[in-house]
Amino acid sequence: MISDSFHPFDDDKLHEECGVFGIIGASDAAAHCALGLHALQHRGQEAAGIVSYDDIHYHQFSAFGKVGDSFNSEEVIKGLPGKTAIGHNRYSTSGKARRAANIQPLFAEVSFGGLALAHNGNLTNARLLKKQLVEEGSIFRTTMDTEVIIHLIALSKGVDAVECLVDALKQVQGAYSMVVLAEGRMIGVRDPLGVRPLVLGRLGSSYVLASETCALDIIGARFERDIQPGELVILDGENPPQSLFPFVRTGQRFCVFEYVYFSRPDSQVEGRAVYEIRKALGRELAKENGIAADIVVPVPDSGVPSAIGYAEAAGLPFELGIIRNHYVGRTFIEPGDQVRHLGVKLKHNANPAVIKGKRVVLVDDSIVRGTTSKKIVQMVRDAGAMEVHMRISSPPTTHSCFYGVDTPSQDQLLAHQMSIEEMRQFIGADSLLFVSVDGMYRATGEASGRNAGAPQYCDACFTGDYAIPVVDNETDGLPLLDSVLVETAS
Amino acid sequence: MISDSFHPFDDDKLHEECGVFGIIGASDAAAHCALGLHALQHRGQEAAGIVSYDDIHYHQFSAFGKVGDSFNSEEVIKGLPGKTAIGHNRYSTSGKARRAANIQPLFAEVSFGGLALAHNGNLTNARLLKKQLVEEGSIFRTTMDTEVIIHLIALSKGVDAVECLVDALKQVQGAYSMVVLAEGRMIGVRDPLGVRPLVLGRLGSSYVLASETCALDIIGARFERDIQPGELVILDGENPPQSLFPFVRTGQRFCVFEYVYFSRPDSQVEGRAVYEIRKALGRELAKENGIAADIVVPVPDSGVPSAIGYAEAAGLPFELGIIRNHYVGRTFIEPGDQVRHLGVKLKHNANPAVIKGKRVVLVDDSIVRGTTSKKIVQMVRDAGAMEVHMRISSPPTTHSCFYGVDTPSQDQLLAHQMSIEEMRQFIGADSLLFVSVDGMYRATGEASGRNAGAPQYCDACFTGDYAIPVVDNETDGLPLLDSVLVETAS
Amino acid sequence: MISDSFHPFDDDKLHEECGVFGIIGASDAAAHCALGLHALQHRGQEAAGIVSYDDIHYHQFSAFGKVGDSFNSEEVIKGLPGKTAIGHNRYSTSGKARRAANIQPLFAEVSFGGLALAHNGNLTNARLLKKQLVEEGSIFRTTMDTEVIIHLIALSKGVDAVECLVDALKQVQGAYSMVVLAEGRMIGVRDPLGVRPLVLGRLGSSYVLASETCALDIIGARFERDIQPGELVILDGENPPQSLFPFVRTGQRFCVFEYVYFSRPDSQVEGRAVYEIRKALGRELAKENGIAADIVVPVPDSGVPSAIGYAEAAGLPFELGIIRNHYVGRTFIEPGDQVRHLGVKLKHNANPAVIKGKRVVLVDDSIVRGTTSKKIVQMVRDAGAMEVHMRISSPPTTHSCFYGVDTPSQDQLLAHQMSIEEMRQFIGADSLLFVSVDGMYRATGEASGRNAGAPQYCDACFTGDYAIPVVDNETDGLPLLDSVLVETAS
Amino acid sequence: MISDSFHPFDDDKLHEECGVFGIIGASDAAAHCALGLHALQHRGQEAAGIVSYDDIHYHQFSAFGKVGDSFNSEEVIKGLPGKTAIGHNRYSTSGKARRAANIQPLFAEVSFGGLALAHNGNLTNARLLKKQLVEEGSIFRTTMDTEVIIHLIALSKGVDAVECLVDALKQVQGAYSMVVLAEGRMIGVRDPLGVRPLVLGRLGSSYVLASETCALDIIGARFERDIQPGELVILDGENPPQSLFPFVRTGQRFCVFEYVYFSRPDSQVEGRAVYEIRKALGRELAKENGIAADIVVPVPDSGVPSAIGYAEAAGLPFELGIIRNHYVGRTFIEPGDQVRHLGVKLKHNANPAVIKGKRVVLVDDSIVRGTTSKKIVQMVRDAGAMEVHMRISSPPTTHSCFYGVDTPSQDQLLAHQMSIEEMRQFIGADSLLFVSVDGMYRATGEASGRNAGAPQYCDACFTGDYAIPVVDNETDGLPLLDSVLVETAS
Repeated sequence: MISDSFHPFDDDKLHEECGVFGIIGASDAAAHCALGLHALQHRGQEAAGIVSYDDIHYHQFSAFGKVGDSFNSEEVIKGLPGKTAIGHNRYSTSGKARRAANIQPLFAEVSFGGLALAHNGNLTNARLLKKQLVEEGSIFRTTMDTEVIIHLIALSKGVDAVECLVDALKQVQGAYSMVVLAEGRMIGVRDPLGVRPLVLGRLGSSYVLASETCALDIIGARFERDIQPGELVILDGENPPQSLFPFVRTGQRFCVFEYVYFSRPDSQVEGRAVYEIRKALGRELAKENGIAADIVVPVPDSGVPSAIGYAEAAGLPFELGIIRNHYVGRTFIEPGDQVRHLGVKLKHNANPAVIKGKRVVLVDDSIVRGTTSKKIVQMVRDAGAMEVHMRISSPPTTHSCFYGVDTPSQDQLLAHQMSIEEMRQFIGADSLLFVSVDGMYRATGEASGRNAGAPQYCDACFTGDYAIPVVDNETDGLPLLDSVLVETAS
Repeated sequence: MISDSFHPFDDDKLHEECGVFGIIGASDAAAHCALGLHALQHRGQEAAGIVSYDDIHYHQFSAFGKVGDSFNSEEVIKGLPGKTAIGHNRYSTSGKARRAANIQPLFAEVSFGGLALAHNGNLTNARLLKKQLVEEGSIFRTTMDTEVIIHLIALSKGVDAVECLVDALKQVQGAYSMVVLAEGRMIGVRDPLGVRPLVLGRLGSSYVLASETCALDIIGARFERDIQPGELVILDGENPPQSLFPFVRTGQRFCVFEYVYFSRPDSQVEGRAVYEIRKALGRELAKENGIAADIVVPVPDSGVPSAIGYAEAAGLPFELGIIRNHYVGRTFIEPGDQVRHLGVKLKHNANPAVIKGKRVVLVDDSIVRGTTSKKIVQMVRDAGAMEVHMRISSPPTTHSCFYGVDTPSQDQLLAHQMSIEEMRQFIGADSLLFVSVDGMYRATGEASGRNAGAPQYCDACFTGDYAIPVVDNETDGLPLLDSVLVETAS
Repeated sequence: MISDSFHPFDDDKLHEECGVFGIIGASDAAAHCALGLHALQHRGQEAAGIVSYDDIHYHQFSAFGKVGDSFNSEEVIKGLPGKTAIGHNRYSTSGKARRAANIQPLFAEVSFGGLALAHNGNLTNARLLKKQLVEEGSIFRTTMDTEVIIHLIALSKGVDAVECLVDALKQVQGAYSMVVLAEGRMIGVRDPLGVRPLVLGRLGSSYVLASETCALDIIGARFERDIQPGELVILDGENPPQSLFPFVRTGQRFCVFEYVYFSRPDSQVEGRAVYEIRKALGRELAKENGIAADIVVPVPDSGVPSAIGYAEAAGLPFELGIIRNHYVGRTFIEPGDQVRHLGVKLKHNANPAVIKGKRVVLVDDSIVRGTTSKKIVQMVRDAGAMEVHMRISSPPTTHSCFYGVDTPSQDQLLAHQMSIEEMRQFIGADSLLFVSVDGMYRATGEASGRNAGAPQYCDACFTGDYAIPVVDNETDGLPLLDSVLVETAS
Repeated sequence: MISDSFHPFDDDKLHEECGVFGIIGASDAAAHCALGLHALQHRGQEAAGIVSYDDIHYHQFSAFGKVGDSFNSEEVIKGLPGKTAIGHNRYSTSGKARRAANIQPLFAEVSFGGLALAHNGNLTNARLLKKQLVEEGSIFRTTMDTEVIIHLIALSKGVDAVECLVDALKQVQGAYSMVVLAEGRMIGVRDPLGVRPLVLGRLGSSYVLASETCALDIIGARFERDIQPGELVILDGENPPQSLFPFVRTGQRFCVFEYVYFSRPDSQVEGRAVYEIRKALGRELAKENGIAADIVVPVPDSGVPSAIGYAEAAGLPFELGIIRNHYVGRTFIEPGDQVRHLGVKLKHNANPAVIKGKRVVLVDDSIVRGTTSKKIVQMVRDAGAMEVHMRISSPPTTHSCFYGVDTPSQDQLLAHQMSIEEMRQFIGADSLLFVSVDGMYRATGEASGRNAGAPQYCDACFTGDYAIPVVDNETDGLPLLDSVLVETAS
């Protein structure tokens, strides 16, 4: 449900596709894992799953819906015994058939025993590999790219799980941060460019892997370090972490959108505080694009840190000019034409006491399709604003992502279709300005901006500079099984 | 569910018990009514009901849960035809048996035809009246004080609904703002002291009654005026509102807690903007209780406006030092002692990047039992705060409310049991300070504070000055039926 | 759900509206009560309720659906403590709004304390009484005639519950068998003509009241005797039953349809074994209407006992020529015109091995609208029957019932609209014959048939001889509240 | 739910594990398929699934529960477009984890395209094959033996689906009747001994495959012929059926228990009417084991046809001495020791009017553990029977089945543990007699009984003569995956 998210207007945002978590060597591993997934809920709300291991059996529980709606009973947690557990949050891909088999972690029985795997990211040659695998006799049960890795592992002649995993990963291309459970060990691995985040933490004598540090905080674990791009770390519950670097390194391209929007503001990602970077983005925005105004109003809640930064840099008062209604239910019947922009009003109300007669700077983090921005601008005008200036704390989103982010096809991106002036007219603001690419880099601490030819981040959605070749034509999951079988949800 | 509210720590807040809404003369009356109740959802989340009237029949639909979870289908709205509709939100009285019959509006067939009634407030002589009524042969179906009014109406010999209603209200004592539907007319009425709010709005040619103006905003209705204390207004769908003042007036005592916490920050109550009063409370707090500090951090979300006011008056930066997790589910299993203060951490995380090494002013609006404040202070300390100063934008809550607010019994109120210094020790802050009663009055615009002997507001929860005699011993509903019948929820 | 009943074709049967049960002086009273209601499930499947009394409080639980679907957990039964409990099964009045308030036993708090009441039957002057009561200030919460009795009791000036009850019953007309709980006593009462059944049983030192003896069998209770027409029996849990006869007696008119169809075949009603009477009806049918044939086939399951009697008297083999499918679900989509008579085929299949080439006597107990009979005859023909002779073990149903049976309005009764020859053509049988009224009386043991002018049974549905005046125009519940309020199920 | 079955005492019966159905060349194929599965519901109630094919895609819907509870909406049927559809009913394996992936038909994408397969029966070397397959890199998703066939097909190098299927089946041992959908064709196949049934029918120009003829009757299809043991029939929707016999034939061993109990009484199996064979079993029983008695009473409903045959041969009256309650819910709380044998009484009541003072012959079809028989005998005695003689229309069940029937392990079979005299004492009857093996064969039309050394049926459960070697040690599904992964139902 949109209304429950960090990002009330996230019908017009890009979305992270997954969060992963794992812990080894802890009593109550599954309970810790559920808490970690809860802290990572903003990375995926469609479904959640946990696989635990008690030195004899693997145990699996998964369900559609949020972590707190499923992993909340003694009964469920008791059904996941053992000192090791890995888990996964899946993003809600509304509109597609919900397929229970697609919930991760994936589990398979292979030659060396059980194998559980949770994956954040997206492979870019999975379709091609799947075609070859099916021709050789592999049977796929999901429509996920991740299953390709499982089959490559099952067919590998490696001597143990690590060898089989490396063997498999050398055949795939794309972005991945993964947590794997096999042979009593937990393995974490990041793709060679490190597009998706993965951190290592410690809780007493147990080790933790998680997409973000906020998942360490909730269980009181200490942040140790980021897993490095291309690193494979082996945790056996007793010895110190053992690191391998089995892949050829070609640089480092962490996803800059994690700073802009995806990660939780209280996470430290790649050594930097997300909240501070967002405030810095707001400051850059004020410097680059200042305008005479009376108040700075965030689009709740995504725009709050950058609005604080903007207000600070611009010397303007920060005001809650838009009030959220936290109780949004599913749908409402619109009572005729009298009620305009109901979709927005169900979730928000522009606060007339704050806005009336004012020149308002509205701050948001991004514009994807622009439909919601248009409604917000109108709502603020209806509440009596004299001027409405929209400021966006990221550059225009002009390209689709193929590395694990759910983006509309390129021709649905407003910034791909229109100039900034056309966008301004479309959303109805008096002015519209975005932070520059270099300004964004500066906010992350890169004083000289983007290194031409050797960018420090993956910024393909802003620049079209794709760091990993996109082998498959289609970007959204693996259509091969879908093209044959249409499952109706039961 | 706590986590979905405006007030994430509302397990330690006082709670409004109801919201009311009515509209007459509108096509799609029920759809408008559902939207109005949605905007008033913060006043009650246990259940919602609507009764509509189509000039022939009354139509009723009610359900447990939030408005958006029930009144969201064409089918439901089509089942509520007619140009007049009234509705009611009920507060979740967790712990008591959920009794479907208790969902309002109440409906009865009486001598003059159908009668529907929605009530916000609490009667203080209902037990006594009920005892007399049962002895005379009236049969009660609910445990609500409101039903007493229905029976008094049914037994009245008045010539029409208005006469019967006035007749009934002259026999009751307490606080009430009510919306009534009978004889094709909608009637609004406030008790003589005007304890609970009720406003009149207009949408085209139709009239609206609502607890707060935010319910007018959502349907695009224009705010006309507050219904006055002791006023009974008759709306017949054609003629201008007709006002009666059938009760002896004894002053005006609007509930000051509506400003402090209950009402939505975007509502205008009794002619004043709630958001501005809250900011003013923050400013008063800074003036009265300033201390050297580095940052001002609101307890989300209730403390935000007063924290903005505080930061402004104190010249300190306003920072989001506590981050909410909007995805809180039902319950979690605590994984042993390693995870301290889990209840708070499920909903929040102190943002270390903001807090570490800082002298923090935490701003909240009230303290009831203090248990949550204690956990928040600890969480902020754990994140590295050097000092934690708690500031409360209302006076200490020392007394229970008998006029429609769900309060713990007096001996569970922290401020009733302890001195402020003891409270400070209990919650573990370096300092704890409340706004003064006069400061609170000043923030509402009463420049000289509280008028001794003739207070402008009902402030019994802060002062123990009860404006209406409490006839019944018990304060929570009517135990008479409960004491005989124990219904198990089915 | 039709398919789960004793009577698979009961979409074309008359229906009993209720079953009642009560027990006093038993530990586990509620568990016994649930079992008793389960045994009486054929008398009503829409909803069930139990009220227990533990010498201090009354406890109530009720739910839509069958007894075994609701009263099946420790939790529910523990919520109904005490040594006394009464219960009620309600018939599924499909098509009308399901109104939770209509589930019995009704409970009210009146001047002498709590009062619970379960009623089988129908009052014939309830509308008139209700109108008067509303004008005097009584507020109704249900649409049931039974509530009139509750209000009359509440308004009575009697000194105790028995006096108030007798006072109330003297004002009503109609058919009723009731079980009442008040002042620690259980009271059973039958209307002066004894239209509906009520029996007294004993289990150890506790006493039981039930609609039929099969409810005694299931808990191992001993059948004591039928409650007599006009008798009011008081059971206080200690002393022997105390009987009163407060009403003027005007004869005895037990409902003959209880023998024909309503009661369970293993019940003894008014001192006679239902199964034996049904077999006797089959024998009378063979005697009156014998025809040359090869096999006798019952319409399952209602026609089985009379088919056995018929086969015996006619000297023909009894064969299961129609096989039931016990697994019928809710609905199916008809796949085009190829599948004829699907509704019947979902529940039955004519067994070709039995029927092919045979002259078949089909035996059923009654025909109401005739639509199902038509489909069965066709199905048997399709399976290869040479001749199909339909035999009905009751006289033609020509009149509606106003005494507690759900009947279509008179003009929907096939036997009211058509001659027997026209009916035969309508259902497509080679012959159609009914048992005569005198034959039916003989089967019940009345050797000389029906006493002209002084019939031994209520047989109004066959003869139009209504023993109790029908004061109200409408027969189905009390339309007064319904005509004002339309409740949507939530 | 036990109570809804054909066989009210089926907690003490053997159970068929599956029913299969397929249709090709029909508009509304899925609707026909749902009806066919409904008619086969007695062969499995845990879950049902359908896969349809519309010449482009395969479409799948499956759900736990009965067919009529899931395949009952326009929406579901519309989600299964195309002129070809196959379906499967699964037996309720209560006590094991319900695993959604185990619902058939299984679907896989293989080298030649989509493949759907529905299987009735059980393989006896599946564990061994699975072990080999996993070692080679196949990944299993279910715990069913059937999945082995799918993987063998996927790995086959055959040129088309038929070649691959034959290739796979030549590697498996066991009992199977299967319906397969691939390459636009529907394929039916029976194992070489023909243990499980499979019939071919015709509806207009479309062809139908089904486990029993009752599934043809419900859609109005004409019975064409039984598929022969070892036959593989190919239906392409246009040409006449094409038959292959790819396996070495070793005789014919149809499961005799299909006649005794499994098949519906209105089915024709292997050219014989099940109902007539059951009556003949009753007649043989009377001939072999006649005793002086007053009435013959069937144990409902399984014993009815044989009781009719017995009564006819013995010249005794057939009476419904045990009445079913069709409304059985889930569970009940037993109210103390007063209520004996409640489990039986919830579903049945011995009819005292029939039984009292009589010498009763009770007829049932089989005894597995004997626990229910014991309770029935006691119930009949409690109702006043003078003598109780139990007669069973099959030989003693002494051995487990490994060919698709859910049997207790051998040491739980009463007839394996005890002599007939000991069994008589255990169930408490005055006499207990079974039909002989030769008598059973005679009832099926084999005039000279069982051919020594060359039996005409699979009768292993009565004789221990296992026609197919049992390679795997364990008989119940494939424990290999279960032994690694424990899935909690979600």
